Amino acid sequence: MNAALRGAARVGASLGFELVGVEEGYVGLLEGRVRPIDLRSVDDAARRGGTLLGSARSKVFPPPEGQRRARETLAAKDIRALVVIGGNGSLAGARALADAVAVAGLPASIDNDLACTSMSIGVDTALNTIVEACDRIADTASAHRRTFFIEVMGRDCGYLAMTSAIASGADAVLVPEAERDESEIVEGVARAMEAAYARDSGKRRVLVVKAEGVRIDAATLKERIDVRVAKTLPDVDTRVTVLGHVVRGGTPTGFDRLLGARLGNAAVRALAEGEQSFMAGWVGPGITRAACKFDPYVVLTPLDEVLEETGRLMRGESALARWRRKIVEEIEPILAR
Amino acid sequence: MNAALRGAARVGASLGFELVGVEEGYVGLLEGRVRPIDLRSVDDAARRGGTLLGSARSKVFPPPEGQRRARETLAAKDIRALVVIGGNGSLAGARALADAVAVAGLPASIDNDLACTSMSIGVDTALNTIVEACDRIADTASAHRRTFFIEVMGRDCGYLAMTSAIASGADAVLVPEAERDESEIVEGVARAMEAAYARDSGKRRVLVVKAEGVRIDAATLKERIDVRVAKTLPDVDTRVTVLGHVVRGGTPTGFDRLLGARLGNAAVRALAEGEQSFMAGWVGPGITRAACKFDPYVVLTPLDEVLEETGRLMRGESALARWRRKIVEEIEPILAR
Amino acid sequence: MNAALRGAARVGASLGFELVGVEEGYVGLLEGRVRPIDLRSVDDAARRGGTLLGSARSKVFPPPEGQRRARETLAAKDIRALVVIGGNGSLAGARALADAVAVAGLPASIDNDLACTSMSIGVDTALNTIVEACDRIADTASAHRRTFFIEVMGRDCGYLAMTSAIASGADAVLVPEAERDESEIVEGVARAMEAAYARDSGKRRVLVVKAEGVRIDAATLKERIDVRVAKTLPDVDTRVTVLGHVVRGGTPTGFDRLLGARLGNAAVRALAEGEQSFMAGWVGPGITRAACKFDPYVVLTPLDEVLEETGRLMRGESALARWRRKIVEEIEPILAR
Amino acid sequence: MNAALRGAARVGASLGFELVGVEEGYVGLLEGRVRPIDLRSVDDAARRGGTLLGSARSKVFPPPEGQRRARETLAAKDIRALVVIGGNGSLAGARALADAVAVAGLPASIDNDLACTSMSIGVDTALNTIVEACDRIADTASAHRRTFFIEVMGRDCGYLAMTSAIASGADAVLVPEAERDESEIVEGVARAMEAAYARDSGKRRVLVVKAEGVRIDAATLKERIDVRVAKTLPDVDTRVTVLGHVVRGGTPTGFDRLLGARLGNAAVRALAEGEQSFMAGWVGPGITRAACKFDPYVVLTPLDEVLEETGRLMRGESALARWRRKIVEEIEPILAR
Repeated sequence: MNAALRGAARVGASLGFELVGVEEGYVGLLEGRVRPIDLRSVDDAARRGGTLLGSARSKVFPPPEGQRRARETLAAKDIRALVVIGGNGSLAGARALADAVAVAGLPASIDNDLACTSMSIGVDTALNTIVEACDRIADTASAHRRTFFIEVMGRDCGYLAMTSAIASGADAVLVPEAERDESEIVEGVARAMEAAYARDSGKRRVLVVKAEGVRIDAATLKERIDVRVAKTLPDVDTRVTVLGHVVRGGTPTGFDRLLGARLGNAAVRALAEGEQSFMAGWVGPGITRAACKFDPYVVLTPLDEVLEETGRLMRGESALARWRRKIVEEIEPILAR
Repeated sequence: MNAALRGAARVGASLGFELVGVEEGYVGLLEGRVRPIDLRSVDDAARRGGTLLGSARSKVFPPPEGQRRARETLAAKDIRALVVIGGNGSLAGARALADAVAVAGLPASIDNDLACTSMSIGVDTALNTIVEACDRIADTASAHRRTFFIEVMGRDCGYLAMTSAIASGADAVLVPEAERDESEIVEGVARAMEAAYARDSGKRRVLVVKAEGVRIDAATLKERIDVRVAKTLPDVDTRVTVLGHVVRGGTPTGFDRLLGARLGNAAVRALAEGEQSFMAGWVGPGITRAACKFDPYVVLTPLDEVLEETGRLMRGESALARWRRKIVEEIEPILAR
Repeated sequence: MNAALRGAARVGASLGFELVGVEEGYVGLLEGRVRPIDLRSVDDAARRGGTLLGSARSKVFPPPEGQRRARETLAAKDIRALVVIGGNGSLAGARALADAVAVAGLPASIDNDLACTSMSIGVDTALNTIVEACDRIADTASAHRRTFFIEVMGRDCGYLAMTSAIASGADAVLVPEAERDESEIVEGVARAMEAAYARDSGKRRVLVVKAEGVRIDAATLKERIDVRVAKTLPDVDTRVTVLGHVVRGGTPTGFDRLLGARLGNAAVRALAEGEQSFMAGWVGPGITRAACKFDPYVVLTPLDEVLEETGRLMRGESALARWRRKIVEEIEPILAR
Repeated sequence: MNAALRGAARVGASLGFELVGVEEGYVGLLEGRVRPIDLRSVDDAARRGGTLLGSARSKVFPPPEGQRRARETLAAKDIRALVVIGGNGSLAGARALADAVAVAGLPASIDNDLACTSMSIGVDTALNTIVEACDRIADTASAHRRTFFIEVMGRDCGYLAMTSAIASGADAVLVPEAERDESEIVEGVARAMEAAYARDSGKRRVLVVKAEGVRIDAATLKERIDVRVAKTLPDVDTRVTVLGHVVRGGTPTGFDRLLGARLGNAAVRALAEGEQSFMAGWVGPGITRAACKFDPYVVLTPLDEVLEETGRLMRGESALARWRRKIVEEIEPILAR
């Protein structure tokens, strides 16, 4: 997020805006915690994980009282435009203020679960951290001839699970888009394991990557698999690893800094030209709008549309959701051998 | 490249093909050095840099005698389809054999200088290695208050220079697409440096990133800048760093492994369905063809077209070349402050 | 371990020995799975985590029947000297064979819980992986103003917990050497947290690092702390992270490769000069023997003594155990602020 | 260095000292640029390369006029004790002020060329960065069957060259301690290369690591080797890589942070107990003094002695210099195969 902050701040400064930062998002906005942005410290922060300004979940925003206080801060500090970096909740908060101030949203969600952008800020860094973790787990698995069930982030969206499974050379992947029930999942994983050993009886490691949103938790999966393959693969030794906070944060990758900087650049320029309520997203398959004039890789979509589409995506209703399921079907066979 | 090899080999094996690897590319093909591919060692290799099969520049291929011997090997070993991973020269070699065997090209070029794909294999890893190097250089620059001129790969294509400059928060970038002459370049860099210090007199580091293809070498640039800013910035201490072999190789990033696996997957499936002479590329702005049916992110383009377009791109003649120059103009201002 | 294997193999080859590798340790030795070592593949493996030869826990070794079969393999393959890389169990296995073959032990234990060496192979890599994980956790903690309880490896030995806490700038550390009971631990952590906030009420992150061997599990610690500080620090948000398999494996650090190579070098040379049953360890405080003549940083200790001392160390009885407790007392205050 | 700053600052604060930081070392001291140290920003900085306070070479310090102005600042700001982090020049500067203020030196020199400490701050980080660079170079060398001559830091001290060569599995190393002349060096490298290919004619990569202080520059070495092996190894393709600024800076390793924190801790406690003029060093072979009472790994040595011993070491006169030459002889054969 800091790279996006730098991108927005540098361009804002070069366009002659006065820049302030709101501490801890909406919580700070309610409490009037607004401070000038120092470009040099923003510069230093861009290569660091987390966020320079802090983050907090607000219990009183968006309700009317919270909104009223936020508007007071905006008026008191004479803030004319707001750049909000975050996920679905943060973007909904931005829309709630769109009648009082121009708002630009930048998509930041490690799950990559937002519509109207092919990539959210933080996803590429998370992918690389997960792949490194899977490499280390594969070292252990190979040394001791083990099967690991690895759970990664992704409540409604299997993007990280699918991409990290392919990149890590995993033997199977479980994503929410596949919409399988528990028995189908267990049977599918068991067959993938049996097939892996049938092809290579000396195989030293099996990795199964699972998104957290899949309808079976990792420990249960292990137990059911242990029972299911007790006869067909009697020597198999299974383990569970849940990658949670361990793979969040960290120095952002080159792409994530580039993404943040370019989204921030386009968003601030669009605000400067009078745009009122939009999210800046990254082009890619499934994104149908044309690129904006500030960057051929950036697409601007009204916040209303972003929120509606993201809701549909989470409920599995939209064209994008159907399209994602199709990707799963098309890509999954890479894992077969 | 090893991840692409794994992707192609896994899918090939699952489709029932018998798989062989040719050592050291065309050199090995001329000499008949062909060996069975062991899936387990391919699996282990996928997370390593370089290439499992080796690489070598051939002096006798494509000339007729070289081609004749390559065809002999293909016939003798009963090879029906060839997957070639490499840059412009490798793809030209593939086309030369396309009448004797089905050929699929996978784009691998650290410079990202191939047409008909938005990303080549190796580029994302190089970007991250360069950004890490720039971070370390920035540490030194900040500690000692210095200006660094950093030369990165890119003979005809400024992709790596531009993206690493933005991701590193550099103060200026020099790319071949901008087509400036030496005096314009020196003047532009000097003004960027003066502007940087005018905005922040306590500024501790200035980074200027330059693609190797720009018409002034890094040492000359330093000398001319030293003379040019001798009076306006008397305390400035300038240094040159050329990032060459130091940023090649290395553990591939998550994206590079994903890219290799998905391009390899689509290429092998297309070969299995009878496609004869094509390159599998990654979608993105500037790529006008529709995605293939095997993966919504992969585009198949005839090799003839890829080679022709890449030639035009290098000469700066094509629509894509003009489009890239436009990107430079649109994106470069992010670096301003 | 692969770097140690390379060090031993390179030196062994240069001294004219014929080299074989035993697959999966004692399990492979029982089963006669012995294969020639290929120096080139050993070279490639040295920068990879895990072990080229595989590892497995044996249920039938050391019992007499297992030993008999191991001796049969040694005789059948005419193996004259054995280099064993591993922890306490592996070294005990080596001693059991010391009347049949010359044996050299190389200490490899991620917990750093072996006596007669200041560092074991794998510890420095684990330290760096833990510190990186703590950095990422600190990013999240700082963004959301949280306290994290982080459990790291170390059943009997708090080395990794203590060093990673200091290196990560943690606010408190819990190690088994301190021998505190549950109430003392909870009270100590609560006071460290209160003190941290008393000094800096805007403090955004608190990290508490805990070795797994400490007499309270991480989840219980969190629960008891939540109750204990409910009134004094009402806004504190606590989380638990257990770093297990996620921080094992991985590309070995420079020091770990150096350590493996130098221990392997000295061990093989000592075997070549007729030494029979010893471990090669790294010098450092608490190691009283003089360095060997092959390397001023390497100490050779009879296996009997290593096993006896390690047993005492684990029971907390030895001079080294007392000395480690003293270190804890002396070093821990670094964490105070 | 930032980790050392944090270690010193945390302990200083816990002992009740008021803490100030001097910007850019002696230059800032001359100019009175002294500012309060904020523990929170020191905490954040500890995982970053470079130095929070900045660094600069002074032209007017130590001469009398410079010293006079430094003493004025110390008096004006009522500074009672000074912690100086740096190499030989910085420690000499500290000694020059030892009659006016209590001074503690912390050894920081990427070359590891200071006496009275087995490790200086920054060395372990540099080792790891060099090893990573050598890994990447080895990927390229293996892919294209090349020999690389890699120059690393080390004017008078071959520590980094020797350790990185061993850790990288290089085939030869050149260090200043060996005191060979140009012809001996060329002949030695040529023979190592010939021996490497004699043992393994299919060998794909040869790495030769060279300290910058060795009496032949890398380009000349390459030219002379090309001539020397033109007949014996006609197909060899040699390249030169100089690792300079590219391997400085960067996120410090676990050990470097630990080292900085522990040296800083012991130094501040010793100052608190009235010590006047000393350097805090790390124990290890060749360090004869006993550990201090604050940390069993830390040795305190009078600054006079440190400077005298370091001078002798650089001139190759001391017992330590002789001992280092002996290490070279003992360790170098690890590289043979």
